[in-house]
Amino acid sequence: MAGEFEFIARYAPKGAKRSDVILGSGDDAALVQVPAGKSLVSTVDTLVSGRHFPVQTSAYDIGWKALAVNLSDIAAMGAEAAWVTVALTMPSETADKDGWMSAFCNGIDDLAKQCGVAVIGGDLTSGPLSVTIQAMGFVEASKALRRDTAQVGDVIAVSGNLGDAALALHLLQSAVDVPAELLERLDKPLPRLALGQSLAGMAHAALDISDGLVGDLEHMLKASGTGARINVAAIPRSAAFQAHCPATLFDSLPLTGGDDYELCVTLPKNALVEGLTVIGEIEAEAGCRLLDAGGQAVKLDSSSFDHFKSAAHDCR
Amino acid sequence: MAGEFEFIARYAPKGAKRSDVILGSGDDAALVQVPAGKSLVSTVDTLVSGRHFPVQTSAYDIGWKALAVNLSDIAAMGAEAAWVTVALTMPSETADKDGWMSAFCNGIDDLAKQCGVAVIGGDLTSGPLSVTIQAMGFVEASKALRRDTAQVGDVIAVSGNLGDAALALHLLQSAVDVPAELLERLDKPLPRLALGQSLAGMAHAALDISDGLVGDLEHMLKASGTGARINVAAIPRSAAFQAHCPATLFDSLPLTGGDDYELCVTLPKNALVEGLTVIGEIEAEAGCRLLDAGGQAVKLDSSSFDHFKSAAHDCR
Repeated sequence: MAGEFEFIARYAPKGAKRSDVILGSGDDAALVQVPAGKSLVSTVDTLVSGRHFPVQTSAYDIGWKALAVNLSDIAAMGAEAAWVTVALTMPSETADKDGWMSAFCNGIDDLAKQCGVAVIGGDLTSGPLSVTIQAMGFVEASKALRRDTAQVGDVIAVSGNLGDAALALHLLQSAVDVPAELLERLDKPLPRLALGQSLAGMAHAALDISDGLVGDLEHMLKASGTGARINVAAIPRSAAFQAHCPATLFDSLPLTGGDDYELCVTLPKNALVEGLTVIGEIEAEAGCRLLDAGGQAVKLDSSSFDHFKSAAHDCR
Repeated sequence: MAGEFEFIARYAPKGAKRSDVILGSGDDAALVQVPAGKSLVSTVDTLVSGRHFPVQTSAYDIGWKALAVNLSDIAAMGAEAAWVTVALTMPSETADKDGWMSAFCNGIDDLAKQCGVAVIGGDLTSGPLSVTIQAMGFVEASKALRRDTAQVGDVIAVSGNLGDAALALHLLQSAVDVPAELLERLDKPLPRLALGQSLAGMAHAALDISDGLVGDLEHMLKASGTGARINVAAIPRSAAFQAHCPATLFDSLPLTGGDDYELCVTLPKNALVEGLTVIGEIEAEAGCRLLDAGGQAVKLDSSSFDHFKSAAHDCR
């Protein structure tokens, strides 16, 4: 088996070529240039096998998803994604498996190139499988999308459809065949980078929906000192979701399932943007009121996807 | 047990206060300002329990060391360390243990404050214990210390003493009492940030010695297209090292033991700096020649600390 250095030189994904990378992988640290007038945006997320992705997830999809969830945070700031570092911990026996490593790196490389992101550093250690990616980008500080700036009277809107990934996971765990379009949403989410950038300086507040709409929205409401009313029937659900979702989960998966990586934003009423669906309104009264089409409260059992509180979303 | 968000709010270390942090932890990503005229330096390293630190290492020391090894990479670039993110994966049962988390965070917080570094983000996941830290800083790009720019005729110098940490680990594994000053060097290394900054724009090349002098130096020589001659007797060893090191390991631990986190730099002959000890010279002929006081070749069994090649340094 190759040593670590050989290994990194052989497989390391490079992502997109960027002229602002002065020194990439291979030194003690990378050196990059943030454009004048922009501030650095930085985020980190770890994905643990069996926890953040099912153990049977392909190496390619693990690489893709680990990058996607981090780029989604950059999108939620309204920033341009630019550079990432990848820290992979894996069992030696997996590293030996033909193709695992190159498939993993291809998953990262393909999404990185698609998003114009350069991979500027990495670390490889032996241990139980997990991936930690740090994503960096930049935005004019005054235009950055924050979560603590929602205003009473704003409409609340989301990108794409919610609940697909959570439904795919539910079907997987029920040993039911999962339609490809749902599985794709679980394994290969697409960060909403272009949309995020188009909202910078315009949306009042934003975050990405990784832990479930209700839980994530509650963070925004708390940070902004506001409340909200959500029209549950207005939440966009894909055709595949509508066709395959059990009635008992029709509301709870989009509301609390998580793993959507769509953006949830608040906007002035007259500032609507293509690609967004209005699902509610920011109100002065604290708390999040979930209402059905008739204006009656929708009750839910659990709130947000919390790795240390709930095992409901555990992939094992 | 507290949920993840409560948990983070309660324990998250903040490190130093910095006026260039526009938005710290708590949003999708942090927002910071790189000074005009400086480039961003970024590095990442993962520490896995039983692999990069002995399983009996205290929570405080794990936090300290995970930060120190990353700041050491920033030091080796000649940069000012500014911001870090911390991704912690830990078993739920450890998180429950009274005091573990707060001790871990104190270890990070104390070193971060000492180094003027702000903690701007974090992630907490449940799984086998490992810590991934991303460290960021800045430097004038033309003054950054690289490893591919050593010049024939340069002297090679190192900071501090080498071999202490490797000796401490050897004694631990031999179930021998470890002198406190050696254990401190294993568990609580000090990144050479001030020294690195003082060398920026002056040293021709630099790297930090994490994997062992010979292995790390070979990366520099290869990248620079040069070779080197090392006077093994000139390598600085601490009094504690000299008093406690078995004769058979007297050369090999400083040369290949790793975990030193000292700087190895090359300089013009007339540009010596306080705190450095000259141990050799850059030569045109490829390869690294290790010579004893009499000019005879010193033979070694192993080369560098490579997580995927050798189990010799495994802490389990």
